[in-house]
Amino acid sequence: EGQGEDGYFASYGDVSVHELMLRDRPRMQAYRDAIVGNRKMFEGKTVLDVGTGTGVLAMWCAQAGARRVYAVEGSDMAHVAKKLVAANKLEGVVEVIHGVMEDVSLPEKVDVIVSEWMGFYLFHEAMLPSVLFARDKWLNKGGAMLPSEVTLWAAPCNTYACLAEGLDVSLLGEMREEAGAGAPNVVQLEERMLMSAPAVLETWDCGDVTAEELVSVRAKASVAADRAGQVNGVCLWFDCAFGEGVVLKTGPGEDPTHWMQTVVMLGATVEVEKGDVLPFEVCAKACRVQVHVHRRTHTHCRQVHMKQDDANSRRYIVTVTT
Amino acid sequence: EGQGEDGYFASYGDVSVHELMLRDRPRMQAYRDAIVGNRKMFEGKTVLDVGTGTGVLAMWCAQAGARRVYAVEGSDMAHVAKKLVAANKLEGVVEVIHGVMEDVSLPEKVDVIVSEWMGFYLFHEAMLPSVLFARDKWLNKGGAMLPSEVTLWAAPCNTYACLAEGLDVSLLGEMREEAGAGAPNVVQLEERMLMSAPAVLETWDCGDVTAEELVSVRAKASVAADRAGQVNGVCLWFDCAFGEGVVLKTGPGEDPTHWMQTVVMLGATVEVEKGDVLPFEVCAKACRVQVHVHRRTHTHCRQVHMKQDDANSRRYIVTVTT
Repeated sequence: EGQGEDGYFASYGDVSVHELMLRDRPRMQAYRDAIVGNRKMFEGKTVLDVGTGTGVLAMWCAQAGARRVYAVEGSDMAHVAKKLVAANKLEGVVEVIHGVMEDVSLPEKVDVIVSEWMGFYLFHEAMLPSVLFARDKWLNKGGAMLPSEVTLWAAPCNTYACLAEGLDVSLLGEMREEAGAGAPNVVQLEERMLMSAPAVLETWDCGDVTAEELVSVRAKASVAADRAGQVNGVCLWFDCAFGEGVVLKTGPGEDPTHWMQTVVMLGATVEVEKGDVLPFEVCAKACRVQVHVHRRTHTHCRQVHMKQDDANSRRYIVTVTT
Repeated sequence: EGQGEDGYFASYGDVSVHELMLRDRPRMQAYRDAIVGNRKMFEGKTVLDVGTGTGVLAMWCAQAGARRVYAVEGSDMAHVAKKLVAANKLEGVVEVIHGVMEDVSLPEKVDVIVSEWMGFYLFHEAMLPSVLFARDKWLNKGGAMLPSEVTLWAAPCNTYACLAEGLDVSLLGEMREEAGAGAPNVVQLEERMLMSAPAVLETWDCGDVTAEELVSVRAKASVAADRAGQVNGVCLWFDCAFGEGVVLKTGPGEDPTHWMQTVVMLGATVEVEKGDVLPFEVCAKACRVQVHVHRRTHTHCRQVHMKQDDANSRRYIVTVTT
């Protein structure tokens, strides 16, 4: 906090990231429906917003009738959040706390924890452990988590199918491979680029999942190709449920979000026939995602490692092992 | 062409730009409707595709029945286009020519010129002069241009209105200004962020506009604010008509394209009442966009200069003068 109240001007780059989030309509709509549209959960209650950023979710909680909202933010965005809370005359309800969640001390326990902690393919930002820490330390028994439940989905896909209707442009995919650009692709796919119905890899209840259970996630699914074609990757995405029928969906075919989908390229093209069963496995461990797709005698495997750059938390160093 | 036929692997970065284009659904749909959906324009005809890139438009022309398609591409993407044409067994019809349009010699004149030359706010990529050069040199009298007509739209806007429903986050806009990030923003606005009905700045007929007329574009419009609020910028976008009712629209409220919209920030917030008349002026000259908004005794003016980086044509150096 030693930078003075105008220290935040140094971090404009971060502000633009938050703008991107604020312009993400499905994201904003789901949280607003879950908060402002759900007053009975908030009226007279205490709330904790973990990683409040610009403070928008915390302010919505205040507007939904919360008695007190603790808005915790570790970065200098806390200064911006404080100013926005003042600009919206909500200082009487929302208290912005500049600090790391694990070190923060609140004057009371809370009835609701709200957070937007999701990263690419759900786990990428690795912010969930802080939310779970907050839950175990500060949430009243029987308190509510928003989102309440998250689901990881996957489907084998062909990311170059249908890119140019009626034409075969799969060579572009081969070039991507040959150029070594086998990074997990954050990209918006069309539903018809999926080669099977999507499979639920796993659903986690935010009320009782433990950080230990998330250190290493290994999920298997088996799907049948719904047509003949080629598989060149596995597409991952997530949905978040907030209760009361509010669900934030980030899959192909939904309104695009800034998360889009994450495609782990196989580094190979697997020919499939309609009905072929494709067992595959996704392992995520400390931002490491590994995908196997098996078909008959062939196994295609690629391991992708994404590491946050120490100097710039918005940049990732990606390594791929085949 | 000295790099050999695999020289294109060096330019993967460019391939990813082309992928972005191919994933732009409204762009692809409009061109496909205008070409494959319009066989009578192509059947038995000769076609020139200026700046063919991956060759997709040229190949669609072949599928629409063209007798011969000359696909001219100045960059090394020509190698990729050649391979894609071969992969689609269209070498008999599509001839990819690696060269600068102004230097290329074709064996005959053409009946149709197809091109996707549009940049941000229509003129940014400055590729249109090459298309007009090609038209004047190679198009048969009475030949067709696709797109046939382009329209530049504008509307005063508030880019921070409605970013977080029910909250005032205009401070983020002020931070953007104070941080000197007054660059033309390429951003997708929602329709409700516009402060008036949009105004047509100008419509150009691709069949007869001259490059000289485009050296300096100056367009004025006058709109009335449709509600009280604040204006912090002018939003620019374009539509392209292809004839036969096919129109590619890139405005707020339409399905997003990779062009999104371009907002020139005013560097000031202008308070307006419902019905206030806002005369404004947009000047574009060699990638320089200037916007004036007048209201009563105040004039807000900002000049934005975007210059392509010599070393990387996908990077722009932006300077702003107030």
